[in-house]
Amino acid sequence: MNSAGKVVALCGGVGGAKLAWGLAQILPPEQLTVIVNSGDDFEHLGLHISPDLDTVMYTLAGLANRELGWGLAGETWHCMAALQQLGGETWFRLGDRDLATHVYRSQALQRGDTLTAVTRHLSRSLGVQHTVLPMCNEPLRTLVDTDAGTLAFQDYFVGRQCQPAVRAVRFAGAAEATLPAEVDAALTDPAVTHVIICPSNPLLSIAPILAVPGLREQLQALRDKMVVASPLVGGQAIKGPTAKMMQELAMPADSASIADFYREFLGTLVIDECDAGEADKLRAGGINVQVCKTLMKTDEDKIALAQQLLNAT
Amino acid sequence: MNSAGKVVALCGGVGGAKLAWGLAQILPPEQLTVIVNSGDDFEHLGLHISPDLDTVMYTLAGLANRELGWGLAGETWHCMAALQQLGGETWFRLGDRDLATHVYRSQALQRGDTLTAVTRHLSRSLGVQHTVLPMCNEPLRTLVDTDAGTLAFQDYFVGRQCQPAVRAVRFAGAAEATLPAEVDAALTDPAVTHVIICPSNPLLSIAPILAVPGLREQLQALRDKMVVASPLVGGQAIKGPTAKMMQELAMPADSASIADFYREFLGTLVIDECDAGEADKLRAGGINVQVCKTLMKTDEDKIALAQQLLNAT
Repeated sequence: MNSAGKVVALCGGVGGAKLAWGLAQILPPEQLTVIVNSGDDFEHLGLHISPDLDTVMYTLAGLANRELGWGLAGETWHCMAALQQLGGETWFRLGDRDLATHVYRSQALQRGDTLTAVTRHLSRSLGVQHTVLPMCNEPLRTLVDTDAGTLAFQDYFVGRQCQPAVRAVRFAGAAEATLPAEVDAALTDPAVTHVIICPSNPLLSIAPILAVPGLREQLQALRDKMVVASPLVGGQAIKGPTAKMMQELAMPADSASIADFYREFLGTLVIDECDAGEADKLRAGGINVQVCKTLMKTDEDKIALAQQLLNAT
Repeated sequence: MNSAGKVVALCGGVGGAKLAWGLAQILPPEQLTVIVNSGDDFEHLGLHISPDLDTVMYTLAGLANRELGWGLAGETWHCMAALQQLGGETWFRLGDRDLATHVYRSQALQRGDTLTAVTRHLSRSLGVQHTVLPMCNEPLRTLVDTDAGTLAFQDYFVGRQCQPAVRAVRFAGAAEATLPAEVDAALTDPAVTHVIICPSNPLLSIAPILAVPGLREQLQALRDKMVVASPLVGGQAIKGPTAKMMQELAMPADSASIADFYREFLGTLVIDECDAGEADKLRAGGINVQVCKTLMKTDEDKIALAQQLLNAT
């Protein structure tokens, strides 16, 4: 079915999780490790919430809510409704079943478990077979400098719905973060044949992962195995503020900007067929480019893109 | 309808809450203050849970789950079911709507609100008109010394279902507790005509309230206004381990023991008609005794008992 050895995927939430699901349909559990952005993690209602880790776990477990794009399928909202009546904070919606994940995680972290250990336990309990790892165990937090001031990630993303113009993205705590042994082991395993950067938002979902000290260097060493799936289709992101943010940061929303963003370790860039016109110029610049359909609407699309990326090197 | 002035009731959970509800049907909001045991409070799943305060608030709001005897009517259990799947702690059952109360309270306490302030907010939000006060804001915690060792209250009450034999009941943190200004004001209000001790477990629900420094002295000063509703009916408690515990602590489960327990401030003891045979002996011992039906099966029973207690002095 595939000639890949071990595969490591880096991803954020929704779009990245879809591709991770596609990869998981092709690769057996021991062949796929997904390293997930935890820069969006935050404390809310006294709970530690890890939006991207949860989206990846729920998606791999087949439990994700496809309509919402986050949370669990068939979710109920009784706690939120009651909290609203009490005048509590309900701008970040947590379903009744989803709450259990946050309650369990918060308690485990409080008693001293690492985010890596909690994620392993949650993954297993949810029925996820493949390995899901947070990028680090320390609190590395994405901050967005905007024309409305500096905002914590969720304030920008959910609270303000990405409306303020972005001036910079920063990662508080990055200097203190360390590469978890499990991430290090996954990336230095000699059996690794592919490191895939999922079509997640480079600035918000992948950049925090790259901010973990030591990770960039590891990816540089894996350059010829690196496959980047562009998150852009015809200059637009399928979901989320990628294109808007790129423009605000004076990066043209095109494949060349994506290539430039990942230049220090870019092996192969996979772009959508509707951006095929950009391929020649990229190749002239010395970049390996492959063109395929990157839009993932159906489960078949996800598996097909996963297979294309595995075939790309 | 009533000739009472201001009324203060001291109570624990279920039985006491029923009487508090009866009193609230007779007395307008400004005439009734309910001081509630918070010795059962505990941290669970990272949340601050106040079982007796919640039972009283939910009962006064008409939202209590009558079948369970705790929690909210029409409750759902999705979070608990999910938590069980994750291997979390589910021995103390928290409904989805009930969870919102604990989440709100925990967050408010964490930001520095007092338990008194949070209880006021929650009461208002739930639609409770009368005043509900915790006995203190500090963590005064009931510990039960048993033949199976010292147990935190909920470990004994819910975890072990009151099965270990009790040797002593202690109140950790009592020395550091202080009478809240609101409790002090309610008890020293010259308009007070009745202080009612609800038919709650004296050892587990009322004793922690009495353990707050200064409270016993205030009740002594109110002796002629004190009305104690015996929790025993024919030597048995309607609910809970009162009679079993009394026996384990070498207190006969009868009205005389109840009178003795409250002797330092006992004004009038109200006992059930099926214990009428004990009345003469109690009176011979100098105790004011009134006999009436104390069993509260229907809403009419609750109101009738409340009226009897208001008529008792």
